Formats: sequence, C-alpha cells, structure tokens
Amino acid sequence: MGTGRGDSGTLEWKVDIPGGKSETLVPESGFVCRIWRGLRGLVEGFLLKIWRFLEKAWGIGVDEPRKLVHCLKVGLALSAVSLFYYMRPLYDGVGGNAMWAVMTVVVVFEYTVGATLSKSINRTAATFLAGSLGIGIHWVASQSGERFEPIILGFSVFILAAVATFSRFVPSVKARFDYGASIFILTFSLVSVSGYRVEKLVGLAHNRLSTIAIGTSLCIIISMLFCPIWAGDELHSLITRNLEKLSDSLNGCVAEYFHQNGTVDSGGEDCSKKLRGYKCVLNSKATEDSMANFAIWEPAHGNFNFRHPWKQYLKLGASMRYCACCIEALNGCLDTEVEAPEFLKEHLQDVCMILSSCSSNVLKELMITMKTMRRSSKIDFFVGEMNSAVKDLQNGMKSLPTMLSVTPPDTVKGKPGTKTTIPPLMEVLPLATLVSLLIEIAARIEAIVNNIDELACLAEFKPAKDDKPKQNQSTITPISDDQDHETMTAIQKV
Amino acid sequence: MGTGRGDSGTLEWKVDIPGGKSETLVPESGFVCRIWRGLRGLVEGFLLKIWRFLEKAWGIGVDEPRKLVHCLKVGLALSAVSLFYYMRPLYDGVGGNAMWAVMTVVVVFEYTVGATLSKSINRTAATFLAGSLGIGIHWVASQSGERFEPIILGFSVFILAAVATFSRFVPSVKARFDYGASIFILTFSLVSVSGYRVEKLVGLAHNRLSTIAIGTSLCIIISMLFCPIWAGDELHSLITRNLEKLSDSLNGCVAEYFHQNGTVDSGGEDCSKKLRGYKCVLNSKATEDSMANFAIWEPAHGNFNFRHPWKQYLKLGASMRYCACCIEALNGCLDTEVEAPEFLKEHLQDVCMILSSCSSNVLKELMITMKTMRRSSKIDFFVGEMNSAVKDLQNGMKSLPTMLSVTPPDTVKGKPGTKTTIPPLMEVLPLATLVSLLIEIAARIEAIVNNIDELACLAEFKPAKDDKPKQNQSTITPISDDQDHETMTAIQKV
Repeated sequence: MGTGRGDSGTLEWKVDIPGGKSETLVPESGFVCRIWRGLRGLVEGFLLKIWRFLEKAWGIGVDEPRKLVHCLKVGLALSAVSLFYYMRPLYDGVGGNAMWAVMTVVVVFEYTVGATLSKSINRTAATFLAGSLGIGIHWVASQSGERFEPIILGFSVFILAAVATFSRFVPSVKARFDYGASIFILTFSLVSVSGYRVEKLVGLAHNRLSTIAIGTSLCIIISMLFCPIWAGDELHSLITRNLEKLSDSLNGCVAEYFHQNGTVDSGGEDCSKKLRGYKCVLNSKATEDSMANFAIWEPAHGNFNFRHPWKQYLKLGASMRYCACCIEALNGCLDTEVEAPEFLKEHLQDVCMILSSCSSNVLKELMITMKTMRRSSKIDFFVGEMNSAVKDLQNGMKSLPTMLSVTPPDTVKGKPGTKTTIPPLMEVLPLATLVSLLIEIAARIEAIVNNIDELACLAEFKPAKDDKPKQNQSTITPISDDQDHETMTAIQKV
Repeated sequence: MGTGRGDSGTLEWKVDIPGGKSETLVPESGFVCRIWRGLRGLVEGFLLKIWRFLEKAWGIGVDEPRKLVHCLKVGLALSAVSLFYYMRPLYDGVGGNAMWAVMTVVVVFEYTVGATLSKSINRTAATFLAGSLGIGIHWVASQSGERFEPIILGFSVFILAAVATFSRFVPSVKARFDYGASIFILTFSLVSVSGYRVEKLVGLAHNRLSTIAIGTSLCIIISMLFCPIWAGDELHSLITRNLEKLSDSLNGCVAEYFHQNGTVDSGGEDCSKKLRGYKCVLNSKATEDSMANFAIWEPAHGNFNFRHPWKQYLKLGASMRYCACCIEALNGCLDTEVEAPEFLKEHLQDVCMILSSCSSNVLKELMITMKTMRRSSKIDFFVGEMNSAVKDLQNGMKSLPTMLSVTPPDTVKGKPGTKTTIPPLMEVLPLATLVSLLIEIAARIEAIVNNIDELACLAEFKPAKDDKPKQNQSTITPISDDQDHETMTAIQKV
C-alpha cells in the first residue's frame, strides 16, 4: 500500500504536445502511478470475474449438454415465430398482434416439456376465461350508463385482481395454476380497461387468443420433438440417483469408521464426494416438488403413462430424506474423539460391515428396480438378508458383556504396563451409537422398500424375471409373481 | 349401487306436451333415477370440493391477514394504473402503450418488497439494455442492404436468445437476474423484429420505458408505503421461530423418552405439534434461499441496514438444519421397542434432562438475541452450563459399569423370582444412543452459537446489557463487551 518503493522510476509518462515535441511527466509522488495501478487492479478484477463466470458456464455446458440443446431450441422457436413478422401473408393475417406470439414463446418455453405444457395450458385457458369474463363485464358496464361505467369496470378489476391474487396463496392453486392466475389478472385488466377505448373488443380478443395459440403450439411442438426433456424422466432419474447416493454414503461411512478405506477403489477426493452424497438427498426436496408438479401435465412417454403416480415419488423422496437424516447423524457421531477399544471394534466390525453392505445391497437393488421399472425377484431375499444381519448385530451386542469381563486379546499385549480393566460404557458409546443408528437405518430402508413396492403396484411395473440370486437358488422354490409379492410384503412386515 | 330399492316410486317424471296435457314417464327400470343420482353425486362432490377450498382459503386469511392486505394492495395498484386509460390527459400523453403499465403492475407486484424491487429493477434494466442493443443491431442491419437485413436480425435473435437462456442456468444469475434475462430476450426480440416494420423505433422504445417506469414506481411505492412486507423481516423471524421450534422439539423428545410429559403444560395435540417442530426446520431451506435472495435488494428498514449480511442467515439456517437432523435421528431411535431397565433410566434421567434443558436454554437465549438483535450477556454462561452438563453426562456414563455389577435398587424388589443379572449392552442401546446424540446435539448447538456470534459481528448487534443471570452474579465479575465476546469465544472453543 502507500507509496510504491522505486516503482515510479520504472514507468515514464510522456505527453505529445502539438508542436511535435514531447514532455516527460514528473511523477507526482507516485499519485498517477497509484491511480494507474488501482485502475489496472479494477480492470483485472473485473476480467477475472468474467473469466470465472465463463469457466463456470463452460462447466455447466460440458456437464449437461442438454441445457445447451435447450438454449438452441429457444433460439429456434424465437426465430420461427419471427416469421410472422418477416413474411407478408402471415403478417397481414395476424397483424400487429404477432407481438403476442413472440411474447408467448419467450414466457412459455421452459426447460422441461411438463413445465412448457403447464404454462401453455395455463396461459391459453386463463386468457380465454378472463377474456370472456372481461367482455361480459364490459357489456354490463356499457349498459349501465356513462356515469357508472368506469365505476363498475374499476371495481371489478379491483375485486377480481384481489381474489385471483389471494387464490395464489392456496398451496394447491400455487402448485398448478400460479401462472394461470397471474395471466387471468393481466388479461382481465387489459380487456376490461382497454375496452373503454377500443370498440372491436371481440375481434381483439379473438386475435390475441389465436396468436397465443400459435405461440404455445410452436413451443409445445419444438419442446416435444427435438430432444424432449421430460420432467417425469428427470424426477425418476433423480430418485434413482439418490438411491445410489444413499447406498454409497452408507457403505462409505461405516467403512471409514472401521478404517477400511482401502476397499473403496477410487481416489480420496472421489471417495469423500461419494461419502457426502446423502447431503444431495437432504437438499433435493424443492426439485422433487417442482418436477412432480410439472410431470402431472405430461402425456404418456417412454415407460410412463399419462396418469403415472407422480405423487408417490414425493412420498418416496420423503422416506429417502428420512433415511439420509440418520446417515447424517451417523456421520456426525463417528467424528467424536472417543475411540472405542480395538478389540471391541474388531468384535463388532464384521457384523456391522455385513449389515451396512446388506443395507446397501437393498438400496442398490431398489435402484435397479427403479431403473428398469421391473419388479425385482431378489429384493425379498435382500431384505431378508438385511433383517438377519440386524439380528446378528443384536446378538453380537448381547454377547458383549461376556466379552467385557474377559481379558481382551492380543491388541494390548504390546503395552505391558496397561492394566486390563472392563472398559467403561463411555468408550463403547460411539460404537453403540453406530449400532443403534445402523439398525434404525435398516428400518428406514424398509420404509423405502414399502414405498417403492407401492409405486410398483400403482405404476404397474413389469413382473420380475425369475433369476433368483445364486447363493439362494437351492433353498427357495420358484414362486409366481403374486406369491412373490406376498412373500416380499410378509418379509417386510417381519 | 345397482337398482335402487323402492326409490323409483318416490320420484315422478312428467313431460308437458304442447296440447296442454302432461304424461307421466314410466320409470325405465330405475335408469333415469340412476342418472339423477349420479348427477346429484357429481354436483354434491363438486360443491363439497369448492366448500373445502373456501374453508382452506379462509383459514389462510385468518392465519395470515397480511396476505389479505397484499391482495388489496394488488387491487389498488391495478385500479390506480387504470387511471392511465380513464383520464384523457394521461391517455394522450402515454398512448396505447399504457397497456405496458398494466402488464408491468401485474407481473412485478410481489408479496415482499424485496421481490417487487428485484423484479422492478430487473425489468427496467433489462428493457433498457435490450432496447439499446436491439436498436443498435437494427441500425447495423439496415445499413447492410435489404438482402442481409433479415438474416442479420434473425441470426442475432437466435444467438442472443440462446446465450441469455443459457445464462439462466448459472446459479448466481438464476438467483438474482432470472427475470431480467427473460425480459432481455423478450424486449430484444420485440425491438429487433418489430423494427423491421415499425419506423419510429426510438420513440417506441422511449414510450415503453416510460410506461414501465410508471408501472414499477407505482408498485414500489404501494408495496413500501402500505403495510410493507420485507423479505428481510420474514427471513429474520423465520430463523428466530425455527430456533424456538428446535428448542421445544429437543426438550419434548427427551421428556417423552423419560415419560415426563406432565411437565409440558399444554394438551396432547399441541404438545406433539411442538415435538414435530424440527420438521419445519428441515423443510425451510427453499424459503430461506428465496427470502435471502430478495432481502439483498431491500433498502435499510427497521433494524436492518442496506448491506445487512443476509448470506450469513443461510449459513445459520444450514447449521440449524444440521442440528434438526440429529433431533430427527433421536426421535427415530427412541421409538424402538427395546426398553432400557428402569434403574438405569433413573440413573441417567437427571443428567440427560439437565443437558437437554441446558441445550434448550442456549437455543432460547439465541432466539432472544435474534429477536432483540442485542448481544446476550448470558449466552457464555448458558454455553458453559451446557458444556458442564455434557461433562456430567459423560461422568454419569463412566460410573455405569460399577452400577451394572451391583444389585439394582428397589425397582425389581416386587418380583422376587427375577434373578438380578448384569443387563446386556443390548438393553442399554437406546439409552446410549440418546446420550450420544444429546452430546452431538450440544456440539451442533455450539456451531449455531458461533454462527450467530459471527452474524452479530457482521450486522453490528447492539452491545449486551449487563444483567448477569442471578445464580451466577456472585462468581462472575462484570466484564466489558469486548472481553465478554472473547470469553464467549473461548468458552465455545472448549
């Protein structure tokens, strides 16, 4: 800061004087220099910000090329609608109202098909409703004399705007018809107010409806034909990805506690990213809600029917967050500085690892069920395995008091001075919490299984293929799908 | 269902024939009747739905009368803007473009001042930017001959629309300038496209800007003068309420476990509502994010300066959700059917209850700090108390093994046949989990304390009043605010 030491000597300021001579400026105690440096700093900072922004934008484009495609689609739709202005015949037909078509495209074109459809239908229906109502009230007003006309019109605008605004606070309206309510207010005000001046009101309304129809159908066609992005697909794959993240996090947490990071093959950063996957699950409520709201508007596509049970996904998402909460707590409790004695850890390590890997297996199997939209023939087996692992863990805990009173094995041999005492419960605390939370997590995973089972019924998932897991093939006799389902429910209820 | 028993006899259908006679219709095996009943069912169902909707809307209005006020404000703003059409002089001045003023009011008027300001500034700035750019490109196009003009215009619309759409995917742009980007696309397309037809482009742009300015300033004035609803206030009181909810939930959970519901004075339903308060904390992320984004735009109001550290609220909210997660897990773990032996519960009950009430006290004190925006002189004392309660609980756990080997007191006296054995660790599991989670919750509450302390520094909360808690007055010597703060930080680091 302050004056630059010797810096001013390295920089010379020359001023060209019209006569052809040039004068060297004497540095005014580094003042010019400081301003120069300040300016340079500002410009550099600004350029750096822009550079970072571009880098971030580039990252988004590389990660999700579909977003780039969406942008090109918007550009395409806007250029197409411009034809209404460029081409004479169309211009004469639709007239100056073509502006409404441009506006419709800009406002209505959204990332997913569902959102575009929802906005299109809302806009068209609300314009039609509010237009009819506006013309009706305008007619009533015009019949009631010049004096009352502005009063009736103004009052109706006030009342309807207030009521429509209030309706947007009701959650069910907010979720589906928020945009429609605001377009309703807009159109009604425009029609009833402009009707006071413009005579050809019906013609105007007809024109506006037809341009909006042109704009919305263009948007719907482009968003559905060129690389369509379905809100339903997005929701389905979000849930599927989250199931995998839960599974990875759970496995990673328990492995980390028992210092078995070697089993996770990839590098440290990637590993800790996997470990923190449950945080995405915790934060995905808003996305799920909006996607489910949009998906309702979508027609049948891919594996999804028109009346696909999207609401069930919200229940499913809630039960997954419920499970993620437990993993969060688990992660927090494992960070304590109290270390359980080595021999105790070893005693429980195997059962804990088995339970966590069984739970992970269930989650992974559920992920496959969701991905293929085919009922799983193995899920009942995996759930059974998880439940027996819970029993094993409980038995392992029951045998602990016996363990506590005997001399712990080799682990303390190296320290001959240490007296072998019964470890206080305090030292077992993190381990006990781990066990307790693992059991709780298993219970919450069963809730997820039930939710996905319900979803499979409602959405009529394909029946299971009959390939039982190999370890089990000899003991379980092949059963029909219905029986399969019953067995599964029975096992879940155990 | 099916045919109604005897019902058809009670209902007669008569047809008036032009000649003045009437014929009684013979019931065609109850067919008409069935249709009638079906229709009546439909109408009744529809009316019931409307009734429920109205009930819900009424509930919202009663619970939050400010929402009703907002609706009246929207009606007022729209009626006011209608003056531009009703009054001749204004009409001649602003012309047909007054439509833009109506549209601006409908689109820009939002529930909170921050949201209204954000949309207003976005709309005005984006219109100005896009308008200038549009006119510039239109000039360039008009200089390049009739053949290239439509190509240049069409291409520029395509490129700019795609780029602006893409920028909306960048989170920082999405948070603050989402609406601006969409208005930029809209205005640019309208100007550059309509410029192909309309000659008086600059005049049009000027007109549009002035109408938008009229609309936005009207919205801003009405939203700020009549019962203003500040996004900042909402965010601040949301966080404050959530602190109270966390405190209630924590206390309720622990009390429920030890069957001490009698201590909570209010009824059962109210009590369980309090118990589930942490769920609100878990689900409030989206609201916090949007409120913080809007609050940034708000001018100084009440206790908040223009550059109030709203981002710190997001950090604070995250740490509160982090704590709520633990309460969630606690709540889940306590539902298990494994009951800890009565004498063990009694041994730990007091220390657990003390810790939970100490933690609650800290949360409540934080709530008061937030509510009054005044640093607390007691918080260091409460945090110290919480930490010593943690120590006590840990000591209580350490003394347990001794407890386990002695004969449990009176509790089992009633059953002479029961052999007094050392309870297996399995039975202590829920209790151990409770202890472990309570300790973890205390640690997370300290993180909340640190965050609020940081907020108090950034937002320059008022200095603490010097009223130490009575129990402590004799031992703690009065210290200055700076020292106070240092002590607090020191205690938090313990």
